[in-house]
Amino acid sequence: MFFHRQELQFKATPDKSDPLFARKLQEVLGGQYGEITVAMQYGFQAWNSHLPGKYRDLLFGIGAEEMGHVEMLAIMIAQLLEKAPAEDTEAAVKADPTLAAVVGGMDVQHAIVAGAGARPVDSNGNPWQGSYITASGNLLADFTANANAEMQGRVQVARLWHMTDDAGVKDLLSFLLARDTMHQNQWIAAARELREEGLEGLPVPNKFPLKNEVREVAYTYLNFSDGAAAAEGSWASGPTPDGLGEFSYAEGPGSSVPMPPPTQPNIGLYGTMPVPGPLGKAAATVKDALTGD
Amino acid sequence: MFFHRQELQFKATPDKSDPLFARKLQEVLGGQYGEITVAMQYGFQAWNSHLPGKYRDLLFGIGAEEMGHVEMLAIMIAQLLEKAPAEDTEAAVKADPTLAAVVGGMDVQHAIVAGAGARPVDSNGNPWQGSYITASGNLLADFTANANAEMQGRVQVARLWHMTDDAGVKDLLSFLLARDTMHQNQWIAAARELREEGLEGLPVPNKFPLKNEVREVAYTYLNFSDGAAAAEGSWASGPTPDGLGEFSYAEGPGSSVPMPPPTQPNIGLYGTMPVPGPLGKAAATVKDALTGD
Amino acid sequence: MFFHRQELQFKATPDKSDPLFARKLQEVLGGQYGEITVAMQYGFQAWNSHLPGKYRDLLFGIGAEEMGHVEMLAIMIAQLLEKAPAEDTEAAVKADPTLAAVVGGMDVQHAIVAGAGARPVDSNGNPWQGSYITASGNLLADFTANANAEMQGRVQVARLWHMTDDAGVKDLLSFLLARDTMHQNQWIAAARELREEGLEGLPVPNKFPLKNEVREVAYTYLNFSDGAAAAEGSWASGPTPDGLGEFSYAEGPGSSVPMPPPTQPNIGLYGTMPVPGPLGKAAATVKDALTGD
Amino acid sequence: MFFHRQELQFKATPDKSDPLFARKLQEVLGGQYGEITVAMQYGFQAWNSHLPGKYRDLLFGIGAEEMGHVEMLAIMIAQLLEKAPAEDTEAAVKADPTLAAVVGGMDVQHAIVAGAGARPVDSNGNPWQGSYITASGNLLADFTANANAEMQGRVQVARLWHMTDDAGVKDLLSFLLARDTMHQNQWIAAARELREEGLEGLPVPNKFPLKNEVREVAYTYLNFSDGAAAAEGSWASGPTPDGLGEFSYAEGPGSSVPMPPPTQPNIGLYGTMPVPGPLGKAAATVKDALTGD
Amino acid sequence: MFFHRQELQFKATPDKSDPLFARKLQEVLGGQYGEITVAMQYGFQAWNSHLPGKYRDLLFGIGAEEMGHVEMLAIMIAQLLEKAPAEDTEAAVKADPTLAAVVGGMDVQHAIVAGAGARPVDSNGNPWQGSYITASGNLLADFTANANAEMQGRVQVARLWHMTDDAGVKDLLSFLLARDTMHQNQWIAAARELREEGLEGLPVPNKFPLKNEVREVAYTYLNFSDGAAAAEGSWASGPTPDGLGEFSYAEGPGSSVPMPPPTQPNIGLYGTMPVPGPLGKAAATVKDALTGD
Amino acid sequence: MFFHRQELQFKATPDKSDPLFARKLQEVLGGQYGEITVAMQYGFQAWNSHLPGKYRDLLFGIGAEEMGHVEMLAIMIAQLLEKAPAEDTEAAVKADPTLAAVVGGMDVQHAIVAGAGARPVDSNGNPWQGSYITASGNLLADFTANANAEMQGRVQVARLWHMTDDAGVKDLLSFLLARDTMHQNQWIAAARELREEGLEGLPVPNKFPLKNEVREVAYTYLNFSDGAAAAEGSWASGPTPDGLGEFSYAEGPGSSVPMPPPTQPNIGLYGTMPVPGPLGKAAATVKDALTGD
Repeated sequence: MFFHRQELQFKATPDKSDPLFARKLQEVLGGQYGEITVAMQYGFQAWNSHLPGKYRDLLFGIGAEEMGHVEMLAIMIAQLLEKAPAEDTEAAVKADPTLAAVVGGMDVQHAIVAGAGARPVDSNGNPWQGSYITASGNLLADFTANANAEMQGRVQVARLWHMTDDAGVKDLLSFLLARDTMHQNQWIAAARELREEGLEGLPVPNKFPLKNEVREVAYTYLNFSDGAAAAEGSWASGPTPDGLGEFSYAEGPGSSVPMPPPTQPNIGLYGTMPVPGPLGKAAATVKDALTGD
Repeated sequence: MFFHRQELQFKATPDKSDPLFARKLQEVLGGQYGEITVAMQYGFQAWNSHLPGKYRDLLFGIGAEEMGHVEMLAIMIAQLLEKAPAEDTEAAVKADPTLAAVVGGMDVQHAIVAGAGARPVDSNGNPWQGSYITASGNLLADFTANANAEMQGRVQVARLWHMTDDAGVKDLLSFLLARDTMHQNQWIAAARELREEGLEGLPVPNKFPLKNEVREVAYTYLNFSDGAAAAEGSWASGPTPDGLGEFSYAEGPGSSVPMPPPTQPNIGLYGTMPVPGPLGKAAATVKDALTGD
Repeated sequence: MFFHRQELQFKATPDKSDPLFARKLQEVLGGQYGEITVAMQYGFQAWNSHLPGKYRDLLFGIGAEEMGHVEMLAIMIAQLLEKAPAEDTEAAVKADPTLAAVVGGMDVQHAIVAGAGARPVDSNGNPWQGSYITASGNLLADFTANANAEMQGRVQVARLWHMTDDAGVKDLLSFLLARDTMHQNQWIAAARELREEGLEGLPVPNKFPLKNEVREVAYTYLNFSDGAAAAEGSWASGPTPDGLGEFSYAEGPGSSVPMPPPTQPNIGLYGTMPVPGPLGKAAATVKDALTGD
Repeated sequence: MFFHRQELQFKATPDKSDPLFARKLQEVLGGQYGEITVAMQYGFQAWNSHLPGKYRDLLFGIGAEEMGHVEMLAIMIAQLLEKAPAEDTEAAVKADPTLAAVVGGMDVQHAIVAGAGARPVDSNGNPWQGSYITASGNLLADFTANANAEMQGRVQVARLWHMTDDAGVKDLLSFLLARDTMHQNQWIAAARELREEGLEGLPVPNKFPLKNEVREVAYTYLNFSDGAAAAEGSWASGPTPDGLGEFSYAEGPGSSVPMPPPTQPNIGLYGTMPVPGPLGKAAATVKDALTGD
Repeated sequence: MFFHRQELQFKATPDKSDPLFARKLQEVLGGQYGEITVAMQYGFQAWNSHLPGKYRDLLFGIGAEEMGHVEMLAIMIAQLLEKAPAEDTEAAVKADPTLAAVVGGMDVQHAIVAGAGARPVDSNGNPWQGSYITASGNLLADFTANANAEMQGRVQVARLWHMTDDAGVKDLLSFLLARDTMHQNQWIAAARELREEGLEGLPVPNKFPLKNEVREVAYTYLNFSDGAAAAEGSWASGPTPDGLGEFSYAEGPGSSVPMPPPTQPNIGLYGTMPVPGPLGKAAATVKDALTGD
Repeated sequence: MFFHRQELQFKATPDKSDPLFARKLQEVLGGQYGEITVAMQYGFQAWNSHLPGKYRDLLFGIGAEEMGHVEMLAIMIAQLLEKAPAEDTEAAVKADPTLAAVVGGMDVQHAIVAGAGARPVDSNGNPWQGSYITASGNLLADFTANANAEMQGRVQVARLWHMTDDAGVKDLLSFLLARDTMHQNQWIAAARELREEGLEGLPVPNKFPLKNEVREVAYTYLNFSDGAAAAEGSWASGPTPDGLGEFSYAEGPGSSVPMPPPTQPNIGLYGTMPVPGPLGKAAATVKDALTGD
């Protein structure tokens, strides 16, 4: 269950209205790596969790905080839009170059659809979607996804920090940057702890028996480009991070097989074929229909 | 530039047709973490790269291999569909329970749209989309995204491995599992190398001056759930992975501020408001229009 | 069947070209609550209708009008784009600030993709999609959806009315506003008539036997936030609109149950689990594979 | 801010695993009218609200409850999937007709992607998206949207109630049905209260001056179909629900205007035109380029 | 304007209910090449048309027919669903294998969302979307798009014809096949007529001066694969269809240039870079911020 | 398999940075008819091909070239963004009108998400999606789709050519225009060759027996609009392009049938119905439940 309190974790009030920045800020609210994504991602990982105790608690504990960040950003955006123009006619735009810039750069749906309100979309107006999140049930994979989400999110907030000189907005961004710092560290620590406790390991999923993969190509870098520097990295020689092998390097695929011949499906699918393929029972019936019997 | 050779990196021929499994295999071709995703993700990271040399070479080298994996899976799927039924009428379905299961479980667009061919979609028929990929220009974040993609992908291939007993299909999956093992190891090694060379560090982005974030909350776990075990993890005490702080633990937000009052936007946006808000020039004109002048 | 006549229901010609407004007008053509939505929504409700006579006639009668509104808006947009620039180079933009505003604020796909034509998208360029419409077969629910659609649509047109001073455009908007007034009234009247005729009632669907719901919580407001004013509304005490109960008020959930323990799915799905769960027959086979037999 | 408690509002445990029903239940979790939709919709309406006090409190109060419903459904789905097969090979399917039905009818991404976990998608696997929600800032419109959402949602839950005979699942559905009954009643009461307090009225938005719409067609039913019964309803004669007019009835559009002539845009857009249109300055430059000067 | 008549162009009544086929038939209603696509595509091409007279008349004339086909298919689907099960519980499914096949193969949203009604989606439940249509303003391109749409559509209907033995359904498909035959022929004839009248030609757009393209590579087949047969086709030698050149054949790209060096964007974007790039004024400010001044 | 070479087919370097044009250029990279579309489309057609030899070689040969065009455009866009502003604050925008135009018109995700890099989206920021491509297995249909794609693509590139005066960008566009000229010619030639070799013909699919379609309406133009010029075209009289008939012309549908009565589905679906419909076994059970046993 979730309980709401009509307070914010941190001040989310701009010094003044700025519809242009409101649009940009949508990215970290409703974008691929915005707050809706992490709130939902940690929620679904928790609800799908197969581990009791500290790992699930961690997912719940951070997930609920992120829902509060969704709220802070939505409220900040609504305030940034408070003086969004409602009369941006052509005449008004020509008379006022500042208005022209605003009209050109703001999200027009902020005015037309939401009446100066926040929306569950990114900075280009693409709606948030469920396919942004990851919750596989494998926690080492998922915590890596979480670390990535917090990294991408913090990169975006850092970029936004330079795009405004509103002290109120900058304060909120500074707060979010710090929380992203914390959460990056937490997911990295949690992933490490999973490995140390033997709950999961590399390669993910580590319960899958390695004898079932083609071990011959499990540690060889097959370079399909012509970059000369490709062989210099620590990914091309030396021990592998999973502790189970030694990197090696090769140009191209090593071996290959001929491409299989084109398929000859049922003639009732009307693909373009040289001659009708070998027909099973069903196909024979189609053939009858086609040839008029 | 890309050059195509009409050979495959590994045998991709099933022992026999199986339209049900063809649908499932679409996940690792055109799903969120399928081969199209990694091929495009590594490509865009390379094209957007700001570093010459080994890191970009690595992205190109693996990216081109993944395009070949797209091809192997598409060709495998086409063969799995080679005997897909074209005459799955109600009468036929009732007469043959096996056909019923096939018709119920296969992707019907495989027959109706593609005529027994592969499609750029996932196992539920959702089209692949550009928002699956990540290419931020920050390589530590992006290599973490890549490690996650290879982990999620290998988890999915491992699951699929149990869902077929076709030796030809299993062979291909065993090959892909090994390459995912390699690529997981490579992205982890590359991320480590970036940090060791000082090109990027934690927290990402590490060039952003820490003085600009609210350091007071940068290492405190604020638990917004009521899980008792939340404080036990290595994410709640001890040194942080970025080497810059010490984790601490707190229940709830620590501090908070009142929620700002509701916004009062321009009356020409027709939001429901207690009384019209303070009007600027444009709003005044709207007011004139509204009041009949 | 639909028959087309090469006339418009109302004049749809702007006084002059205005690519900026063309973009905004897309919202009420191809947006969530644009004319394509209502035309399709009333169509599908009619085609799926289980009632003969006046209700289905009403859906057909308004639906066909809305297809004509789609046409009026598309033609208006094409004319607003008639002088859209084809030479908006950087040099031209710098020389002419008005052009800069136009280029910044117009939908660039209007020029690049449609060659100065209307598109089936909203004002941010998101394509219209089938998931915007509602047609459940339950007409009291659907007529409520229709009333909402006409309200949202009229709010948007009213907002747009202030964003232009082109008399030709304003005339068309004034016409659409009046038709939205009519259609709001009609769907409200039709919903009332359904209830008066006993075809449907509250709560929707009213044929579902109330004994099958947990009546104890059917009229209690459970407040999950901390707003003090929450108890004052007519939704917290007094008779309920369905005429079947009396509102009451409570803080929080009233009662609750512990969260169920984490699930322990098949080990072949490679979730992170404390110990492998209880295995059925299939799982046992997976286990064999995993342990090497 | 949101706080999470590791309890559920109501028991959400099935009597036994049922992957087929898990898929169906996704509709009311992640579908157009699922719980994610109402949780987000009420949240955004609250964050964008221009009214302090009871109306915003109501939005927060119900919104937070709906987040808990998201959780209950996710946890129910995870349990329904607990025994989802991981070894649904062709041989296994042929040997066990029940397995065949399960494999045919379950959401395959439940196994392949989520490892027996819930997902933010509908019953056909379409990801939830931000364009499902409505938050216009006009509360009479939005409360009507909310009433519709609760009606559509309750219709879907009632349908699902017949598709299972699992007592645990039925209990949860019975609980959700009751809460939908409550919320339908609340939004209808809240809409009525808005009107009674004069904050908003019909037609929505009622602050827009009626003199600016074409009143001649504001209360006439223009029937664009040939249904004879169309004139019989209370929407074709008698007083209008907004209390401002009298319905009348007419066949067809009443009046019409000729379709405007085809547009003649800039020749540099390469549309197919009879002769190049009248050229402004920019076009002249294009013309120069085209003719070689 | 569009006028609706409550008749169908052709009988659209199945001999009996068949929810499995209802799902398949959705493809040609709401799929990429379904009837909604062609109705909307011809509509937008007409509304955006720059040519008066016969070509626009043709677009209107066929477009309105296609809207009637949307209706015929929706009504057929509703009837195919008339006996869709509402009580497909696990017990019922196990007791009745036919029901199992139906439940596994039908579109579950047909029951849960639409209550046995048609939906604006394809056979996998993906919503129809505006990006399926093409209306560029260039009629030779667009008529080619139309010919393709009618070809893809007829291929799909032909495939569906084999998937049912319901005489009523087969009759409707036979009718649609004939109309697709007509429309294929019409668009091909119209494209030919455009060329003969000199309104448009090859290469499209033929008003663009050929001197502005790199004519050296305008007729050479550059083969980027290793297929030996590639040189045998009429696309590798002989006169070109546009009548302006002669095909030639070459292996690979002919010439190439080195890849440009990696970009060095503003350091405030926090990309991973070797050393900060050359800074302009804005960047200098960022640098100040970063270095603490 | 694909092999990558770190060279470009043609110079892709702008004379100077231009973020506004970078956004526009996204259309031909990641739009409906951009290079990702043709690369993937030709790839899937090849992988799904049922013909060995020259046709499949052609698909592979051009498909791989298009992957290289994806790369050229991505690299060009990254360079156009190299000096994209990172400090576009409100103060900076007001001080510099050029910056205002840039900020208003550029794709803000280019900075916030990609850090001055290319993205797999169109010029409005819509992500590329798998439903843009066509690969039906019927090669005459598919080659027509390809011809259309090259036509639409060349129209867009020609439009873009006028929107920049950067010589470097214009050079690349001139190169792409020439390759589009070539590919238009090739697909037209290949379609012609398919027909001449008897592999496929009109109407597509020509293997479907014409006796199974309603030949009476296979060559009649049924005009559903009121355009007087509709009868003048070569599509209304004379021989048909498929060589099998003679065009004729008729106003309206010719014949029609009454609309079927509304459906009466299972009462457990809670549609609004006059009286419960005829009940089968399952429905009877529902009825029991509804009426209280």
